Amino acid sequence: MAKQIKTAITPTRNEDYPKWYQQVIKHSELAERSPVRGCMVIKPWGYALWEKIVRELDDLFKATGVKNAYFPLFIPLSFLEKEAEHVEGFATECAVVTHHRLEKDQHGALKPAGPLNEPLIVRPTSETIIGDSFSKWISSYRDLPVLINQWANVVRWEMRTRMFLRTSEFLWQEGHTAHATDKEAIERTQLMLDVYANLVENFLAVPVIRGRKSPVERFPGARDTLSIEAMMQDRKALQAGTSHFLGQNFSKASNIKFQSADEKEEYAWTTSWGASTRLIGGLIMTHGDDDGIILPPKVASSHVVLLPIIRKTEDKPSVMEYVESLAKEIKDIRYHHRNLEVEIDDRDIGGARGWDWIKKGIPLRVEIGPRDIENNSVFVGRRDKSHKEKVSIKRNHFTAQISGILDDMQKNLYDRALSFRKTHTTTISDNQAFNQYFTPENPEKPEIHGGFSLSPWCGSEKCEMKIKEDLKVTIRCIPFKGETENADVPGDCICCGKSADKHVVFAKAY
Amino acid sequence: MAKQIKTAITPTRNEDYPKWYQQVIKHSELAERSPVRGCMVIKPWGYALWEKIVRELDDLFKATGVKNAYFPLFIPLSFLEKEAEHVEGFATECAVVTHHRLEKDQHGALKPAGPLNEPLIVRPTSETIIGDSFSKWISSYRDLPVLINQWANVVRWEMRTRMFLRTSEFLWQEGHTAHATDKEAIERTQLMLDVYANLVENFLAVPVIRGRKSPVERFPGARDTLSIEAMMQDRKALQAGTSHFLGQNFSKASNIKFQSADEKEEYAWTTSWGASTRLIGGLIMTHGDDDGIILPPKVASSHVVLLPIIRKTEDKPSVMEYVESLAKEIKDIRYHHRNLEVEIDDRDIGGARGWDWIKKGIPLRVEIGPRDIENNSVFVGRRDKSHKEKVSIKRNHFTAQISGILDDMQKNLYDRALSFRKTHTTTISDNQAFNQYFTPENPEKPEIHGGFSLSPWCGSEKCEMKIKEDLKVTIRCIPFKGETENADVPGDCICCGKSADKHVVFAKAY
Repeated sequence: MAKQIKTAITPTRNEDYPKWYQQVIKHSELAERSPVRGCMVIKPWGYALWEKIVRELDDLFKATGVKNAYFPLFIPLSFLEKEAEHVEGFATECAVVTHHRLEKDQHGALKPAGPLNEPLIVRPTSETIIGDSFSKWISSYRDLPVLINQWANVVRWEMRTRMFLRTSEFLWQEGHTAHATDKEAIERTQLMLDVYANLVENFLAVPVIRGRKSPVERFPGARDTLSIEAMMQDRKALQAGTSHFLGQNFSKASNIKFQSADEKEEYAWTTSWGASTRLIGGLIMTHGDDDGIILPPKVASSHVVLLPIIRKTEDKPSVMEYVESLAKEIKDIRYHHRNLEVEIDDRDIGGARGWDWIKKGIPLRVEIGPRDIENNSVFVGRRDKSHKEKVSIKRNHFTAQISGILDDMQKNLYDRALSFRKTHTTTISDNQAFNQYFTPENPEKPEIHGGFSLSPWCGSEKCEMKIKEDLKVTIRCIPFKGETENADVPGDCICCGKSADKHVVFAKAY
Repeated sequence: MAKQIKTAITPTRNEDYPKWYQQVIKHSELAERSPVRGCMVIKPWGYALWEKIVRELDDLFKATGVKNAYFPLFIPLSFLEKEAEHVEGFATECAVVTHHRLEKDQHGALKPAGPLNEPLIVRPTSETIIGDSFSKWISSYRDLPVLINQWANVVRWEMRTRMFLRTSEFLWQEGHTAHATDKEAIERTQLMLDVYANLVENFLAVPVIRGRKSPVERFPGARDTLSIEAMMQDRKALQAGTSHFLGQNFSKASNIKFQSADEKEEYAWTTSWGASTRLIGGLIMTHGDDDGIILPPKVASSHVVLLPIIRKTEDKPSVMEYVESLAKEIKDIRYHHRNLEVEIDDRDIGGARGWDWIKKGIPLRVEIGPRDIENNSVFVGRRDKSHKEKVSIKRNHFTAQISGILDDMQKNLYDRALSFRKTHTTTISDNQAFNQYFTPENPEKPEIHGGFSLSPWCGSEKCEMKIKEDLKVTIRCIPFKGETENADVPGDCICCGKSADKHVVFAKAY
């Protein structure tokens, strides 16, 4: 006879997962729709999370020798056309600038004027414009490798958008490197995938599977695309970062040549790799619960909120003094090479105050009233536990233990997500079982299906496309050895029955 | 009989200042032209400088309670039109997106397709799109103030561009705030101007004059525009940051209303304020010399370069070991709440190596060879002194003194710039002297003229425009009390002779 527990987010994940996702974004104050089709407004709480991710990822990049730079927002159409597969991949979703001013027509209405000789494309990605710079920067093997990253906004005109996951404009980073040998470029492609996996697993607490995309899922123009894939709580996959080996395709298109040590002229070998605000969508859908988001402490922009409890006006000065001294003490505590961040919320709005911070996913809520101060203690709630589970701790114990508590939360979030993924990942070799696995039991909840299936695949595009058409299931990746069970085990193709040398990850995906 | 000293930059500042500026940017590897009209590529050394400026300014903003957020790149035409002066101010320099995909025509050429119902303008500034969010976020006086900043790229289609100073796309931040009273908004406008002055004077070591723009120089749609103005080495003024009090103009345009404490519905009072990559142009033109840029230590992305001197191969391991241990020691030194940054350059390219770092403006160059190691000393060159002036210092003295040396350089740069500005600033009350002051002595060097003139102005637009047409001289600002001599002293208008209650700053400007 469990009482119905009221949740902060309606509907719950079980009731309607896609709607739950929208409501979490709204109530956690991460973002909102904008009046511009497909574009979102990233609100301060969401942007602070992005800033934290940017800072961590940027440090990881720089530790591998990468330097940041900035290239034009606009790409001349003729540049995009230099690589045939590339332009084909982006032609259907380009924002095109055709004019450079506004002019009043005879009715006084403003109209585009000053037509451009050549249309400019708002960058969907920057291989071709950065390639142009590389062609000027590189002339000898001594100039290599060139290791560049850009933090930027990009535009891909999506017809169906979903906040953070698929928006017409999004924020991302795109890394671009050039090398003297294919070997070195391939190693860099792998290295940057490992950097993404490090960020996503160790900072966002989201477990991932590393692997290679099938040819049809490659980046347009790439020779090889590697990705990390995570499982969301609706058991769908989210691609959380990709790293591309571009061979010499783009260096030939952009004329990136160098003189080798033995004085031969050669085309450079290039890579590119990107991760975006989509990571925030993945974080929400991995850790969020029916009360809102849960921020993994290592990427939380604030770790602790102090909530003064003031019932009588005369208590205010002493409570606030205590709260402020505690805030100062916590801010001096180091946590993973940065200082802890603290919020003080003294709004007089009753119980809504605590719930606001639960919805926003701050790791620790600390209530402090006159009685706590008398006992020199604080009353602490952890976001990874029930909102009712709060404990009184001596102030000095709390400040001494805080880093340990946060590390424990970080670990719990990761373990919980990994356990969820393991529960919903199965090896399936039988075609009928495969179909059943991906068929929703309840047609009203199309999102509830099996999860990830590790199944043999013969390598043919035909089988891949048939499965996609029949079940909306795609090959998420051909996992690297050791990344999943059976990754390297042969079998009979789940679709055609012909011999297959590997098991691959099949799933529905965002 | 002084020998002609060879300089790293040709031409020198005296020979051709505008060309010198372009050459410094090239040889210091800050930026380069891009194939996209009016847009530049910010190279790693230039971008690292921008990152440093961003980090400092961002901290200053956050200390005043400002939070970052992100708004769409595109502004619907109808939004821009909401404020009449505003759209007029930007209509002639807008990049207009009219289509959302590319399609092959009958000859197989890609053409813009998918026309948009309403053209989208690539943001030249974001008052109207951010105002739309504010109108949703604000309903009661309890929601105020709202203090938001955005780091973003913006586009203003300039016909004549100059790297960093005026480019079609540039990077900037734009702050937008909303308040319950005009008083509070006016205070915020002033506060943010002071933040800019703090950044520019104390970090970039560029002295500025704070003041108010004349009505014709205001931001389109603003009630009041404040600015900081700096003098470049060609004696022209550079506007380095602006802060606008927008009154209720934009809140009326965007319908930003709130219920006041006494339950009346009122329009909010808003402000906006911005600074951009233009600051880098100002830094170059203030501190650069005929050998390249000079980075003020507090915004240098690297402070020290270590240059191992290896004449015999067998010396390499011991020299490199020493260099790396020194690098590690320096990196642990705190300098103005951050750690020092060190480069090691072991390229075997002879004297060009030292010159590369001189041109790049790194504050300290440290040569280390076997003999220095024997004496446990280092051989140090400071970028604010002649390249020949290098001194041998004991290693432990050097590491103990390094912060002090950098502070001394920071101060020297500021003092030198302030002294230059004072030398080239005069109070002029006589019309003929005024004309002469601004007329180049040598018509082949139109940039060499007097500098800043403090002169009485009657306040009429007619006089202001006449001076602009005759001499290309504008009112840079009406300085605040105490910012310049005679700021508050009355006189006779320099143009019409009518009584004027203030002296204002006249100058040619970028």
